Amino acid sequence: MKIIVNPLQEAFPELLQRPVMDHAALQNVVQGVLDAVRTGGDKAVASYTKQFDGVTLDNAIVTEAEITEAALALSPVLKEAIQLAAKNIRCFHEAQVNAPVAIETMPGVRCWRKSVGIDKVGLYIPGGSAPLFSTVLMLGIPAVIAGCKEIILCTPPSKDGSVHPAILYAASVVGITRIYKIGGVQAIAAMAYGTETMPQVYKIFGPGNQYVTAAKQLVQQNGVAIDMPAGPSEVCVLADETCNPDFVASDLLSQAEHGPDSQVLLVSTSSKVVDEINEALTAQLGILPRKDIAEQALKNSKAIVVDSMEQAIFIVNSYAAEHLIIACKNDETIGEQITNAGSVFLGNYSPESVGDYASGTNHT
Amino acid sequence: MKIIVNPLQEAFPELLQRPVMDHAALQNVVQGVLDAVRTGGDKAVASYTKQFDGVTLDNAIVTEAEITEAALALSPVLKEAIQLAAKNIRCFHEAQVNAPVAIETMPGVRCWRKSVGIDKVGLYIPGGSAPLFSTVLMLGIPAVIAGCKEIILCTPPSKDGSVHPAILYAASVVGITRIYKIGGVQAIAAMAYGTETMPQVYKIFGPGNQYVTAAKQLVQQNGVAIDMPAGPSEVCVLADETCNPDFVASDLLSQAEHGPDSQVLLVSTSSKVVDEINEALTAQLGILPRKDIAEQALKNSKAIVVDSMEQAIFIVNSYAAEHLIIACKNDETIGEQITNAGSVFLGNYSPESVGDYASGTNHT
Repeated sequence: MKIIVNPLQEAFPELLQRPVMDHAALQNVVQGVLDAVRTGGDKAVASYTKQFDGVTLDNAIVTEAEITEAALALSPVLKEAIQLAAKNIRCFHEAQVNAPVAIETMPGVRCWRKSVGIDKVGLYIPGGSAPLFSTVLMLGIPAVIAGCKEIILCTPPSKDGSVHPAILYAASVVGITRIYKIGGVQAIAAMAYGTETMPQVYKIFGPGNQYVTAAKQLVQQNGVAIDMPAGPSEVCVLADETCNPDFVASDLLSQAEHGPDSQVLLVSTSSKVVDEINEALTAQLGILPRKDIAEQALKNSKAIVVDSMEQAIFIVNSYAAEHLIIACKNDETIGEQITNAGSVFLGNYSPESVGDYASGTNHT
Repeated sequence: MKIIVNPLQEAFPELLQRPVMDHAALQNVVQGVLDAVRTGGDKAVASYTKQFDGVTLDNAIVTEAEITEAALALSPVLKEAIQLAAKNIRCFHEAQVNAPVAIETMPGVRCWRKSVGIDKVGLYIPGGSAPLFSTVLMLGIPAVIAGCKEIILCTPPSKDGSVHPAILYAASVVGITRIYKIGGVQAIAAMAYGTETMPQVYKIFGPGNQYVTAAKQLVQQNGVAIDMPAGPSEVCVLADETCNPDFVASDLLSQAEHGPDSQVLLVSTSSKVVDEINEALTAQLGILPRKDIAEQALKNSKAIVVDSMEQAIFIVNSYAAEHLIIACKNDETIGEQITNAGSVFLGNYSPESVGDYASGTNHT
């Protein structure tokens, strides 16, 4: 990590800059796949699955037998963990259901807001180096609570034509039964336009690589809604002298290991603590299974040391992290002063990972 | 209006199709303006204002004197109407402020969701054939209630360099003081990237023409958030034999007069009522000040007659109108069955116009 001490405010914009992804360069390639699936349907999808996932599938739809097998293949410990996470997510999200409240703004003028679940939604779960079964829970459980009538899940198949059992098990815990072994741009196209075997959906949710993100942005221009475009994942840790340097190092690594483009930022009021975190990083990195990925991400990462907590909070608000961990004595008071952040984790015992998986809050 | 009786379900997608706007064709032009403002700042903005709005401004910032003059220039009746609308909008939106509710998902795991106003927001109010002072209220009042610290308003100047007094008055009622006489793509660019006199904002809201919409979609790819892209305005009226044909005709015209690309759809269970509405349309059109615009919009409009209310509701849900008026006997019961719509207006005495201006609900 590059350590920066007391930077000038003029330097903040450059210091806190994110890598900008240029989707424009991908647009032609992505638009080609979208158009081909729109006109070619299932046949075009199958051909892209062969080309990009390296597998020929007779049937892209996951069968009931495959879902049953997945439950058998998975360890009881993991199944219990998935069930516990699902229970917490359900509990937290059910509390967000609001009954409409009618306001009489003038005599006889009664107005209310009512949330109605979207009839047909499509969830995209990326493949890649780790099965994102937690994202199945994070996207699926709110859709079920909202009352979406049709929930489609797309995820790329492995080279042997299978889907990771944890993804299938998580889907079955949520109650999703329409699962397609389709990944990438062809999955977004199939959900946006429909095929012979896939119903067209009204809104597409879920993370994905640059191609998937570009595809979502393009289909959005054709009347299909999407969630917010996903960029590389990022964490910011705000740590004072009361933090546990080993914990902070683990927090930074938990995000750095996501991918070489992950963003990791440490902001601290103590040079001593930053040095200790750096030492802990080196020690932990040595035994990390995904060491190579984390090392690359850390190369672009920064630790900023400032004199006051006020300045530290200003920097944190300027950066507007997707995930912010406040490893400080006055974590709740500091939390009140955070205006720009996605998820905020308060105190030494609230790592980002708890929110990524099982606290009940949503990571999407 | 083209009348279609008992269409087959297979015909629905084509029947309910919206005009697709091809922003891709505009992208190069729009990107050019965005880039020029990004590098050229206020000078570039002034040059586009000269080119597109036909006026050379010494100062794009509206002065306090101009705001005071606007209040004097406006009729007391209009000022009172704006104040009443603002009061109702404030009342309805203040009721939407939710205090965070903490949920303990497991012993010691306390989670909550908290809404925080965005620090800096930019509101765009289009120029054109009618001053959209109501949009100033619809965008501005929620921003003030949310606690946004900096609220910027951009609107194009007239050829004489002025802004319509109703827009300035509405802004002052809301409490917005930073108003810029900048329109079109150059306004979106200035707010997205900042200039010497304009602070960069975090999110841009508001309607606009195709160029403005394309600009918003492009700056979104550079880290600035936007609201949902605006398409041409539309209304759908669901009318049974208990509707008031004169009222329905007025409702259809109120939307048709927005612009030649406005969408107007009538769905009814009664051929007789559709004929009566058509007669009323002809009569009212004759005396409409914006007759030419409304006539063009009506040319592309359709009336669909079906046998049952069930079918009518299915069509209405398939279309998913921005505005839906239910001019039927059982308006509240039918309203319960609507799953896809923006604003729903219940009964013969709830025209869309009441929501566009003054009921307290939001039209954006």
